[in-house]
Parts: sequence; C-alpha cells; structure tokens
Amino acid sequence: FDVYIDYKSSLGFVGLVLKYMALAPLVPAAAALYYGEDPVPFLVTIAAMGGLGVVLDRLRSDAQLGHREAFLVVSLTWLVVPLVGMLPYLLAGQGTIAQPANAFFESMSGFTTTGSTVLAEISFEQHSRSILLWRQLTQWIGGMGILVLMVAILPELSVGGAQVIGEEAPGLSIQKLTPRIQDTARALWGIYVGFTALAVAVYYALHLAGVAPEMDFYGAVAHALTTLPTGGFSPQARSVEAFSPAIQWAVIVFMIVAGTNFALFWYAMRGEPGRLFRNVEFRSYLLAMGVVGGLLAVLLFAGVGLDEIPSGVATIPGDVEHSVRQALFQTAAIVTTTGYASMDFNTWDQSSQVVLLFAMFLGGSAGSAAGSIKIIRWYLVQKAMARELFTSIHPEAVRPIELPSGTTDEDTIRSVFVFVMLFIVIFVASTIVLYIDSHLTGLELSGIETVSAAIATLGNVGPGVGVVGPMNNFLPFSSAAKVYMALLMWIGRLEILSVLIVFSPSYWRV
Amino acid sequence: FDVYIDYKSSLGFVGLVLKYMALAPLVPAAAALYYGEDPVPFLVTIAAMGGLGVVLDRLRSDAQLGHREAFLVVSLTWLVVPLVGMLPYLLAGQGTIAQPANAFFESMSGFTTTGSTVLAEISFEQHSRSILLWRQLTQWIGGMGILVLMVAILPELSVGGAQVIGEEAPGLSIQKLTPRIQDTARALWGIYVGFTALAVAVYYALHLAGVAPEMDFYGAVAHALTTLPTGGFSPQARSVEAFSPAIQWAVIVFMIVAGTNFALFWYAMRGEPGRLFRNVEFRSYLLAMGVVGGLLAVLLFAGVGLDEIPSGVATIPGDVEHSVRQALFQTAAIVTTTGYASMDFNTWDQSSQVVLLFAMFLGGSAGSAAGSIKIIRWYLVQKAMARELFTSIHPEAVRPIELPSGTTDEDTIRSVFVFVMLFIVIFVASTIVLYIDSHLTGLELSGIETVSAAIATLGNVGPGVGVVGPMNNFLPFSSAAKVYMALLMWIGRLEILSVLIVFSPSYWRV
Ligand SMILES: [K+]
Ligand SMILES: [K+]
Repeated sequence: FDVYIDYKSSLGFVGLVLKYMALAPLVPAAAALYYGEDPVPFLVTIAAMGGLGVVLDRLRSDAQLGHREAFLVVSLTWLVVPLVGMLPYLLAGQGTIAQPANAFFESMSGFTTTGSTVLAEISFEQHSRSILLWRQLTQWIGGMGILVLMVAILPELSVGGAQVIGEEAPGLSIQKLTPRIQDTARALWGIYVGFTALAVAVYYALHLAGVAPEMDFYGAVAHALTTLPTGGFSPQARSVEAFSPAIQWAVIVFMIVAGTNFALFWYAMRGEPGRLFRNVEFRSYLLAMGVVGGLLAVLLFAGVGLDEIPSGVATIPGDVEHSVRQALFQTAAIVTTTGYASMDFNTWDQSSQVVLLFAMFLGGSAGSAAGSIKIIRWYLVQKAMARELFTSIHPEAVRPIELPSGTTDEDTIRSVFVFVMLFIVIFVASTIVLYIDSHLTGLELSGIETVSAAIATLGNVGPGVGVVGPMNNFLPFSSAAKVYMALLMWIGRLEILSVLIVFSPSYWRV
Repeated sequence: FDVYIDYKSSLGFVGLVLKYMALAPLVPAAAALYYGEDPVPFLVTIAAMGGLGVVLDRLRSDAQLGHREAFLVVSLTWLVVPLVGMLPYLLAGQGTIAQPANAFFESMSGFTTTGSTVLAEISFEQHSRSILLWRQLTQWIGGMGILVLMVAILPELSVGGAQVIGEEAPGLSIQKLTPRIQDTARALWGIYVGFTALAVAVYYALHLAGVAPEMDFYGAVAHALTTLPTGGFSPQARSVEAFSPAIQWAVIVFMIVAGTNFALFWYAMRGEPGRLFRNVEFRSYLLAMGVVGGLLAVLLFAGVGLDEIPSGVATIPGDVEHSVRQALFQTAAIVTTTGYASMDFNTWDQSSQVVLLFAMFLGGSAGSAAGSIKIIRWYLVQKAMARELFTSIHPEAVRPIELPSGTTDEDTIRSVFVFVMLFIVIFVASTIVLYIDSHLTGLELSGIETVSAAIATLGNVGPGVGVVGPMNNFLPFSSAAKVYMALLMWIGRLEILSVLIVFSPSYWRV
C-alpha cells in the first residue's frame, strides 16, 4: 500500500532539532572541565547528535511541514532525543544508569520533565557534577520543547481538546500573535529563560543572605533548571528537604509560577496583569491547590497526617509554619506535576497519601510544561456535567459551555472528554500491566504503589508513594517495566493522541 | 422560594408503588407458614407497606406524572421501598441484619440487585428459610423495577445517555411499541417471569435428573429469583460453589441471558431472532465476556491463576472443563454484575483478581437489570475515541457515530461521556472516603480491597476482593460506611443522574 506521509521530511525535521540539540551537551562539558571531570561522554554526545542531525536533515525536501507530518515529527522527536540523550549516562558508566534500560528511563524522564528516577544513590560521590547537571538540563530543554508544543503546535493540530490551550490565550497562537511559530517560541522562551534566571538569583541570594547554607551556586542552577519545566530532578538525594525553609518557600512560589499558563505572563508584561486573575484556568488552578493544600495543612497540623514523626526535622503537630509549608510544598509539587519533595510523604499516613495520589490527576495549567490531565480539562468536564444535570431538568434548554476565551465549541468539549477517557483507560490498563509485571518478577507492589507508579509516569509527575516514593526510586522494576513506563512518560507528555495517531493505520493512508 | 415540583403527587406515586409492593411479603409469609416459621415480621411489613401506601397515595392530585416529577418518584421509590423492606430483617431479629445499619444495607443491596451482604453467617441454622426467601425476593422485585426503569422510564428522561437504551431497541419504548408504559412493563415482565420460571425448572430438573443433589426446590426458586435480576444473593454461604458443575453451567447460561437486552428477546419471540446477533451491543457483550473469560481460563488452566489450590474441589491446573467453567462462571458473574461465585476467587492470584476487578466496570447490556457502566456506553466511548483519532488526521472529515439503531445523535454521545466521567469521579471519591473511613476505624483495607468495595456497590456487582470477597461480607465496615455504600448502590442503580438531579437546586425552581 502507498504511504502518504512524507516521512522523509519528517525525519528531516527531527534532524533539524537534533542539530540544535547538539549545543546542549556543551554546558555539562564545560562544567566537567571546570570541576576537573571527564568531558568525553558529552563530546561524544555532541558528535552523535550533530552527526545524526546533519544526516537526517538532508532528508528534508521542503521547508514547510504538513499538518499530518507534524504528529510524526513530534512523536519521533521525543523518542529520538531521549535515545541519543542517554549517551552520557551510558558512556560515563556511573552507577545504575550505565545500564541501557535504566539510562533510557532516566533520559526519557528528563526530556519529558517527568522526574521519576532510577538512580540508586544520588550523591556527588556516585555521580559527577557534570552528569548530574546533564540530568537537570534534559528537563530544562524538555520544558522548552513542551512549551512550544503546548502553546504553538498542539492547538493547531486540534488534538484532544488542546485547542482550548490556544483558546485560553487568544492572541498567543501562531496566526494570531505572529505569523510564524518561531516568534511564538521566542516569546515563550524569553519568559521561560527569564524566570529560570530569576530562580537562580533568588535561590543563590538566599544562600548569600545566610538563610540557605546548603544552596551553593551549583545547587541554585541545578534546581532552577528543573523548577521551571515542572521537572523535579534534584542532585540531592533528599530533594528539597535538603534545604532550609526559606528555599522551600521560594521553590513553592516558583513551582506555582511554572504551573501557570505562560501566555498569561506574556499579557501581564504587556500591561494586562488583570487578565491573570480573571482567567478561569488560573482561578481553578489556585482553587485546586488551595483546597488540597488546606486539607493537608490541617491534617499535618493536627498530627493525624503523620504515620511517624520524621527524624531530623522539627515535628509538625502544632507547628503552623511547618504544617502549612509542607502541605503547600507537596501540593504545589504534585498539582504542578513538578514532583520535588520537601519531606518524605511516605511517612504521612495513608489517608494523606491518598489525597496526594488523587491530586496527581489534576495537572497544572495547559500553557505550561505541567503534565497530567490539567486543570482546564477538569474545569470543562465539570461544566459539561453541570449542563447535563440542567438539560435533564430542562430538556428544552440550550446551554452552550463557554471556553476561557468566551467562545463556545462543542467539538472542543467532546475532544476534552475523549482525552480524559483515554488518559484514564491507559492509566488503568498500565496499572494492570505494572501490577502483573511486579508480581511476576517478585516485586509484589501493593495496589496503591502500582497506581502511583502508573500515574506518576503517565502524568509526568515523577515520584509515587511507597516503594516509588519521593525518597525512593523506580530501580526495583524489571527492565521491561522500566521501558514500558518510559513509553508512558512519552505518551503522556505528548498528550496521548499525538502518539496514538501515528500508530493508527489510517494515518499512513490517504 | 417557590417549589415548582409537584412533590405531593410524586409522593403519591411512591405510595401507589408501595400499595402494590405490599403483596410481595405474602410470599415469604406463606413460606413461613409452610416451614413452620414465624410469619409475623412479614405480616407487619404488609401492613406497613399497605398503610404507608394508602396514606401517600391520597396525595396524588393527578393521574399523569410530569417529566421532572419522574426523577423524584424514581429516586424516592428506591429509597422508601428498601427502608420499609428492611422491616422483616429488623423484626425477625436473626443474626447481624437485626441491626438497623446492616438491615438497611442488606435491604438496599436487595432492591438494587447489588448482592453485597452483611450476613455474618449464611445458614438455615442462623436464618429462617422465610427470611432468606424474602432476601432473594427483594432482588427479583428490584429487577422488575429496574427493567421498567431502564427500558421505559430513563430513555424518556434522556438521562446520561440512557436514550441509547431506547435507541437500542427501536420499537420497544413507550411511544413506539405501545402507547402506555404499562404495556411495555407487561411485555418485559412477561419475558422476565418466563425466564425465571424456566430457571426454576432447569435448576430443579437437574436435581431430579440426579446431577445436582444439593439443589432442592427451595434452592431452585431461591437462585432463579436472584439470577434473572443479576442479583447474586444466595441462601448458601458458599454461593453457587455449593452446587454441582451441571448447575454451575446452567447458571452461566441464565446469567448471560439475564445480562442481555430484554428487548432483543421480545423481537426474537416475534420472529426476528437474527436481530439478537446483528445487535452491536449483544456482540460487544459476548466479545467482552469471551476476552475476559478466555484470559482467565488460560490463567487457571496453566495454574498461574491460583494462589493456592482450593481444598475440597478438584485442582484446576490441567483440567480443561474445570478451568473453563470457573473462568466463564466468574466472568459472567462479574460482567453481568450478578456477583455469584462458583469458587472463592480470593484464592486466585492477584493478577487474575485485578482482571476481575477491571471487568467490574464493564457492566451488562443496557436493557437488562445489569448494573455498572454497561457495554453499550463503552462501545460508544470507543467509537468516539476512534473518531477523534480519525478527525485529528483528517480535520476536514465529518464522521457521525452510528448508534445501535442506525441513527446518530451527538447529544447522546456527549451524555454517555458525562455519565462515564460522573461514574468514575464518584467511584474515585468513594474509594477515598471508604479508604479513610476504614483506616480511621481500624479496618485497614488495602488499596485493592477499597477499590473493589467501591465498584462492587456503586456498580451493583455485589462481592469485591479480599475482605469483601465472594465468600466474605461487608460486615467489618463501620455503620457510617455501610450507609454510605448503601447510598452508592442507590445512586449507581438509578444511573447516577436521576439522583443527582433531585439534589440540584435548579431542579426545585422554575
Ligand atoms: K515532574
Ligand atoms: K449483583
């Protein structure tokens, strides 16, 4: 049968991305030289990315990409980049990620800004600073890609209700704001880079001010690189627990920023800050975090949220600041799908863990690098439910649902439902797959641990609970399960449909 | 504010139902006299039902029921009847169901054909035959109500995509088949009574033929009464495990019949049997059972499906008939939401239990007494997902989804999605509620047990896994949790929206 997809040009575009990507390993290479570490793994990666990029780029016959080819480009890019991007892990040969399945898992977890890890031991003794910097950087680069994907590419493709993201920000989409995708990308990346620099400055300033002794310049950069993309990797084994309350409060603020629709910052900078608080998505996002955070704060303050009093930190019961900070930190970390931890919530009692697990399905704002289902979809689902009740009572009533932009489009509502259902179906099926695999391989996960592993990877959250909790890792899984979860990150990151479409037979025919 | 609902007439209709219902306890009363047991609990129930019925019936000012009042009548009927119907349990004072919360749970479980039980010990020593007959009869009566609700009332109210049920059977809906709801009811009930009588005959004939020594006439009636409504109550502590393979095969067949759209039998009897196998819902229903049953049969045959070889039954590994029978029995029991057990699937390994748990969300056919989400809704969801993929590839394409009747209606598709999402949201919220309650009260359910308790009650399936497994019961829960789960049965049974609508403020206003 005839293939109607211009797969050569599609590969060519992947090559183009790889050519630019080849600049990225320069950063850890420079760091390696600075710290007296081995720069070779990064130089080899630069050569591999550049070489493959040049070769593939030759396949491009046309500067313009077709609508259908865009799906292939997007899916392939997020598969090929992590595959080449795992080279430093393989070549450096440090610890558990020198093993291929682990390297693939960690690389995919980076570029998809998931933040689940298979590092058995996170320390500067086990891993060089340059390798850990590369790990942080993959998330920051992934975040740049996601932003453009979310705000400029997917809305154009009308995938899974992604058009609501464009709706969300009338003006900030390819045709409306600027004639070219590059300009949209530049506007977003400007904001992204700006906030990253601000995060570095704030984290390091707190150190210089004496309230964050552990946060050196390396740490400030490393954490800024994974805060803005809602990534969650940390070069600290204890994640953000390793730092002072001042840093934790700062990270809370930057996580909330990272989970906000970046288009709203664009308007704010153009003199329309009021748009931020009028926006239904932003309001729903704050409301969701307020409810989850408030509930957890009360549980922690009352002491019922803790299974055991964690050692090394002030006890929480009765401590307002500590209760509120831990509750808000974990809420922001989970709702924005960043996945940092400011304490081991495995020590919280199971009820609080269930609340966190539930929050993993929320997701941040659509126009950010946050993953999972995303608040705006839940908002529209809830609107459609309310309408169903109303029209059941008043069968003659016509009640269009207003999108954030003020327009109405039933196709978008329908697409949102399809997306949420697909997400749930894949989540449930994956839970079963992981459960069976874990039992066949003797890992014997509990139901709640399996559920958390599936949502943590599919929703690009990062850590789950129990054996995959924030201070643990995904290492105990079988290699097959790790590759499976890496693919879950890939599917979840690309809003599911971008990947499924490429696998549907009708995609390849007329 | 003004109430625009004619709640007096609505209560009047509930009274009318109660007046007819007062005839039902005559059956166990007669049985009590036959077995030399106490008939007083049933006589008091007759008086209560009849008395309350007559009083309420006086409130009716009009013979015609409005569209909006129908929701109130339906919701109230399935609340008031179980409340009055628990009188025999309270008055007989036998075992655990003499306690009010337990009696309410058991009564609701009966009239909603759920089949979850709080009987600590099911035996003729602990409970009289007449009380156990009443327990069986509540399911049979409940099934009659459900059939009329499903095929005649809900499609008229266009609730949660319920119109697809009427679509499913063009011709068999109030206006199309006959001008009056009574005639539709009569046609359905004729089929229902016929199959029930046939089940009694087959079960008892197998006894007379010598292949079912344990199945006496009482047992044949008792099980026929709970097979056709997909109820699942059994007066045997070991459910259908207590009977011979011949009976188990017969029950499989009758469960499959009970989960089929009854309208299709109506056509078959009018000379259109081919309609059965051309029907997409029936085909999907058989396909679903084939896939789940085949998977379980292979697992059981290979011996990997068993955690431990159950004592007292032939070992399964390598035994074709036994593997296939157990797999098909549990598949039919779960997919049709009957909830009988032919062996304790708690002894299956966890992977097989997860498969069963997953199957609990399927549900039988729409025009039957089966509960849960129902196959036809999954069929339409899957169609809508496939369309989404197609239209993402071909944005210009218009692809209407054909309903089983051959018509198209996007409102129905949308309603189906809203229903499925509502079901899932209530299921998840209930899992959290039950999990927290079980931990606060020291029951300490596992994640998988909690999930199974929520879906078993909301989906009107009956048994779950683990502590609420088929040979166990729901007694260990707190009284609050039991009342909560009884309300889940109620909401699930009435297709969620019928109940939610009554609780929405706009229902009571213009
Ligand atoms: K993350
Ligand atoms: K049942």
